[in-house]
Amino acid sequence: MVVTNSGCRFIVTEQLAAAGIDPQAVLIEPEGRNTAPAVLAAALWLNRSDPDALMLVAPSEHVLRGAAASGAAVGTGAAAARNGGLVTFGITPDRPETGYGWLELGAAPNGGAEVPDLVRFVEKPGLDAAQEMLEQGRFLWNAGIFLFSVRSILDAFRAHAPDLVAPVEAAVENGRADLGFLRLDPAAWAGAGDISIDYAVMERAGNLSVVPFSGGWSDLGDWHAVWREMARDGDGVAASDNALAIDCRDTLLRSEAEGLELVGIGLDNIVAVAMPDAVLVAAADRAQEVKQAVAALKKRGAKQATVFPRDHRPWGWFETLVLADRFQVKRIVVHPGGVLSLQSHHHRAEHWVVVSGTAKVTIGDEVKLVSENQSVYVPLGAVHRMENPGKVPMVLIEVQTGSYLGEDDIVRYEDVYARD
Amino acid sequence: MVVTNSGCRFIVTEQLAAAGIDPQAVLIEPEGRNTAPAVLAAALWLNRSDPDALMLVAPSEHVLRGAAASGAAVGTGAAAARNGGLVTFGITPDRPETGYGWLELGAAPNGGAEVPDLVRFVEKPGLDAAQEMLEQGRFLWNAGIFLFSVRSILDAFRAHAPDLVAPVEAAVENGRADLGFLRLDPAAWAGAGDISIDYAVMERAGNLSVVPFSGGWSDLGDWHAVWREMARDGDGVAASDNALAIDCRDTLLRSEAEGLELVGIGLDNIVAVAMPDAVLVAAADRAQEVKQAVAALKKRGAKQATVFPRDHRPWGWFETLVLADRFQVKRIVVHPGGVLSLQSHHHRAEHWVVVSGTAKVTIGDEVKLVSENQSVYVPLGAVHRMENPGKVPMVLIEVQTGSYLGEDDIVRYEDVYARD
Repeated sequence: MVVTNSGCRFIVTEQLAAAGIDPQAVLIEPEGRNTAPAVLAAALWLNRSDPDALMLVAPSEHVLRGAAASGAAVGTGAAAARNGGLVTFGITPDRPETGYGWLELGAAPNGGAEVPDLVRFVEKPGLDAAQEMLEQGRFLWNAGIFLFSVRSILDAFRAHAPDLVAPVEAAVENGRADLGFLRLDPAAWAGAGDISIDYAVMERAGNLSVVPFSGGWSDLGDWHAVWREMARDGDGVAASDNALAIDCRDTLLRSEAEGLELVGIGLDNIVAVAMPDAVLVAAADRAQEVKQAVAALKKRGAKQATVFPRDHRPWGWFETLVLADRFQVKRIVVHPGGVLSLQSHHHRAEHWVVVSGTAKVTIGDEVKLVSENQSVYVPLGAVHRMENPGKVPMVLIEVQTGSYLGEDDIVRYEDVYARD
Repeated sequence: MVVTNSGCRFIVTEQLAAAGIDPQAVLIEPEGRNTAPAVLAAALWLNRSDPDALMLVAPSEHVLRGAAASGAAVGTGAAAARNGGLVTFGITPDRPETGYGWLELGAAPNGGAEVPDLVRFVEKPGLDAAQEMLEQGRFLWNAGIFLFSVRSILDAFRAHAPDLVAPVEAAVENGRADLGFLRLDPAAWAGAGDISIDYAVMERAGNLSVVPFSGGWSDLGDWHAVWREMARDGDGVAASDNALAIDCRDTLLRSEAEGLELVGIGLDNIVAVAMPDAVLVAAADRAQEVKQAVAALKKRGAKQATVFPRDHRPWGWFETLVLADRFQVKRIVVHPGGVLSLQSHHHRAEHWVVVSGTAKVTIGDEVKLVSENQSVYVPLGAVHRMENPGKVPMVLIEVQTGSYLGEDDIVRYEDVYARD
């Protein structure tokens, strides 16, 4: 199961589908409240059907290399988890990293069992302390990956973070089913503290153990970490296909935008990332401050802070190609079988040109098939719907004209996905 | 008059029109051969009508502040130019700049006249030499701005660079008129040496003088120079409207692309410039190496090296909004009175949606007016034409579908601009 936010929900379902995974549940957080409420919500949901289930809790932005090694580590931890322990995974460190928490290991129980006890969590250290821990050898990085039974973690929450239990329980109980998602109840959720599972539970619990993991692992928490994971040339430069480095060192150049070439000249320890709607250029050791950039963008009302360039919906996705004062051009991609809601607009007319696949179009009382290289006109106020009845994605260029072009100018009459 | 290249010609005419200037001539260089052939071509063209005309030669990428001060400087130089002198303009230096040539002044003639003699040109110096010249006070920057009569500069070319004269003369004589441009003859032009007017003439001529100019001047030769000219905050940061600097110093952040936000974090002495099709990030002191970047992009076949995102034409301009395997979407803007050629395509059909203004559209035998929020379909192979009969710019979204979408799939039947 996946716990995510509303904006990412269709990206999650598309990636799960691409990986051939049918999830048990996808829970939607009304807002981010850090990891403790998220893990608790998942445990409460699982508790309905299987209190003895083991939960492997893994952040979505980590890289784990080597299925065999990570599978073996989970297997090692499973025995301790079945015995009621809370298992963490500790990464063998290769540098004095100050960006992660660390774990101090005890002696292995019974003089040599595989799962040593955890003596304590060490918060993100300074460089000297990190260097010392690296040399001592009894310290591992805290990967933020956990393994425990539903019963054990619920007991731990009740014991160490009792204030969280009632609001999160209410958020799950009063959650609203929506297209296969469970939207946690916003009012109840707002009453849960904004706290990490490390602080809320792990640093207070007694029944902890650590499974060391020396396979490849990385927390892709910022772009500098992405640089570390990418293939680099002899100068330490990692460049994506449409990026070009001239005389750079220890630099990431990455363009994720169609048709946007990124060029670096004479850069040293820089990360530069170009997206279709925004470009980030940062000193490598400041890459984690991207949150401040988002906050500053939000403050000045830049839509980049809150809106994805590609808006994923249950039926597919769309993106704006150009937005002007009185017109907007969108690319719309509808999955096979996808059906948009029956809708109308007060302020805009739409021209649709099908450029790939076949659309089934309803305008007023008329329903017709529109195939590649055909177009239809949707007059202002007309009740209309678009579907993809075919077996391949349908791609359509929509040209909107009108005095107001916001997404909220929509009246929905009927929606197979039961949206408002 | 303006000497430019083919790719910039409609940008030149649009900027001249915007400034209310009706040029005497716009000469098109078949390829760049540095400043000597360009100045010579202009002088030869002017020589047809007025051998005694004074030519003020000014590069297009310089900033000159203060109309009064620069007008006065030109007035001061004009007397010397009328007397047959070759006048250069020397900028009072404010830093030991190693990126420009310098001018060494003689004593003013007649103990105090306004135009001192020029002793010698100093090529781009090292930092120590630049520092020494800055302190001495008898040295000015060579602005690359000149004033002379047509007769004097032709005499100087004949005396000091005789090899240039015949090929450039032939290039002008055999030039081809094209939409009000004069396209210099490519074969003749190729025979002219690739050399600057400084090397070819100025450093060899005897009748030189200098007009000192202490008004605001800048050669916008690279993005670092642009940074120097822009308003900067207390940390030395210059940021355009859709750029955001967090804790940066002495840095230029400039986005010239609609909807592309640029964010810098923790940068020091960096220039970052985002365009619709490319992003440059460079160490400030390496900004002049952008030529190498263009060469590298050209080598790997990136269209950014050779094609402007907005393609200017005699009737207006267009840009590609999205180019996919079997479709392309363009925004096309047609000036009032603009007429596209009567044409057809072998490999694509086109859907046109007018989003602003009114189009007069010819398809086969039919001619009709298409106004805002109306669309027309141009079938594959159909002979068609688009015009703007109105008084305001006409904006149209074109959706092309087909197996080949290159600009060269065009058959022209009739063209008011007499293109091939």
